[in-house]
Amino acid sequence: MSKPSKTPNIAALERVAPTWRARVEQALDYWLPEPETHPARLHQAMRYSALAGGKRMRPIMVFATGQAVGAELSQLEGPACAVECIHAYSLIHDDLPAMDDDDLRRGQPTCHKAFDEATAILAGDALQTLAFHILAHDRTGTQNCRARLRMIEALSLASGSRGMVGGQAIDLAATGRQLDIAQLEDMHIHKTGALIRASVQLGALAAGPVDEELLQQLDHYGKCVGLAFQIRDDILDVEGNTEALGKSQGSDQRQDKATYPALIGMAEARETADRLIEDALESLSALDQRADVLRGIAEYCIGRDH
Amino acid sequence: MSKPSKTPNIAALERVAPTWRARVEQALDYWLPEPETHPARLHQAMRYSALAGGKRMRPIMVFATGQAVGAELSQLEGPACAVECIHAYSLIHDDLPAMDDDDLRRGQPTCHKAFDEATAILAGDALQTLAFHILAHDRTGTQNCRARLRMIEALSLASGSRGMVGGQAIDLAATGRQLDIAQLEDMHIHKTGALIRASVQLGALAAGPVDEELLQQLDHYGKCVGLAFQIRDDILDVEGNTEALGKSQGSDQRQDKATYPALIGMAEARETADRLIEDALESLSALDQRADVLRGIAEYCIGRDH
Repeated sequence: MSKPSKTPNIAALERVAPTWRARVEQALDYWLPEPETHPARLHQAMRYSALAGGKRMRPIMVFATGQAVGAELSQLEGPACAVECIHAYSLIHDDLPAMDDDDLRRGQPTCHKAFDEATAILAGDALQTLAFHILAHDRTGTQNCRARLRMIEALSLASGSRGMVGGQAIDLAATGRQLDIAQLEDMHIHKTGALIRASVQLGALAAGPVDEELLQQLDHYGKCVGLAFQIRDDILDVEGNTEALGKSQGSDQRQDKATYPALIGMAEARETADRLIEDALESLSALDQRADVLRGIAEYCIGRDH
Repeated sequence: MSKPSKTPNIAALERVAPTWRARVEQALDYWLPEPETHPARLHQAMRYSALAGGKRMRPIMVFATGQAVGAELSQLEGPACAVECIHAYSLIHDDLPAMDDDDLRRGQPTCHKAFDEATAILAGDALQTLAFHILAHDRTGTQNCRARLRMIEALSLASGSRGMVGGQAIDLAATGRQLDIAQLEDMHIHKTGALIRASVQLGALAAGPVDEELLQQLDHYGKCVGLAFQIRDDILDVEGNTEALGKSQGSDQRQDKATYPALIGMAEARETADRLIEDALESLSALDQRADVLRGIAEYCIGRDH
């Protein structure tokens, strides 16, 4: 894949991304209990992981989708925090010795290394709880109760055993076994795709009632982008350089994990990602220029270098 | 403490408990994905732990409170399942090697022994998610959206870092250290008290809007019963016999954990529990005989033999 060509949509994304990132981090800081709140060590561990940086891709998708359908940024902060809490909890638990057993995350000690294993398990547990608490409690969010319940329903479905957690179970069962392309896709749709898709759904629902057809189109966008993002991750793991990625290059290969390039070859992996992104962009055709950041996310997915 | 004297209220509790237990188990069976649903091993682990029996004390408190304020049993099934999913998830994670490292739970291998550690972590995670999914999605529950959001808010507050999970962190930090009575109470209020209190709140909210003063009185009942229950547990751990408890008698002592009898003596521990139950019963004074099962639960707390 060639160097990213900065399309106007990617430029639109890059203009807003730092502001939105700062906004969700400020909101997370607000929602997370203070580091000295009892029990302090648990709250420090929650903050350590949730405020440890990262691209904040899921919150940005909440903001981008909400903006595309006319929501206020203030209505989107709670939902953006909620998806990020789920993401942060899943990383803490994924890194545990019994799971992927990782010592580093974004160049820093993982939660169980910086604290201890028991605290890491509990910090993950409490971050999951916090996600639902925010959606139920959020006073700046939509006052439409039905939309709030739909957000909770969407996030819980995406995070649970038939979504993200299910994907983690599929991934664990797959390590060391030969997967075919359908099984690999099944894993990604659950493990990372479901929460990306939920980010789009929450953004669309955050302002209150939304046109059901539009919601479906946005959902299709989220589904395509989620899978393309993962294929691109596989490609980068082979091609990218270690420094830009912040993790060891080729680490998936070393663990004998199935990847798109390994299963269908590099050229077809790229074509698949490109097709998914075309499909994603097509799903946005009914939307005006307020959806340009969503378009930028899709284009960035196949053009980014980290 | 003498053998339980079967008061009329305890008799009322014993009349309904088997039916309610069966009802929540049937509802759990409905809400839990089938054991063959993909990913099957994860769903089997969730079912293994959530359907492994137990007293179903929290669901019974949801039913008893709901009945006391005039809710239909069908409206209470979802909330009863939700609190039990949270309880089941907390037991799975508490039993993990990094936490209490228990091999047996209710005489059966703990989840990580019956399956494996990674699956147990994920099964716990997914059971927590399911709890919130049920409250958001439940079609037989109240159609009052505001009451549903309040239930989700109450359950998330009770389960998270300032509730049950916080209590587990306090407990871990306390092991091997000398606690005073205030610290012990602080631990119990979080670790077990918060979820028992939430069970009462959910029961009260499950039928829709509820008188706020009544809600406060019921909340006080839940708070008192939750703490009395824990004191009684400590007493039974010293006095009870291993067979009736299903866990090793004196196990708390062996792990050097603080208990009420150890800190304030057996007589004062009993008196404290008795006073709390008097207080709990007093909180129900505005309610008619539909609250007799709630009264029975309180009386059972200080008189039960297992």
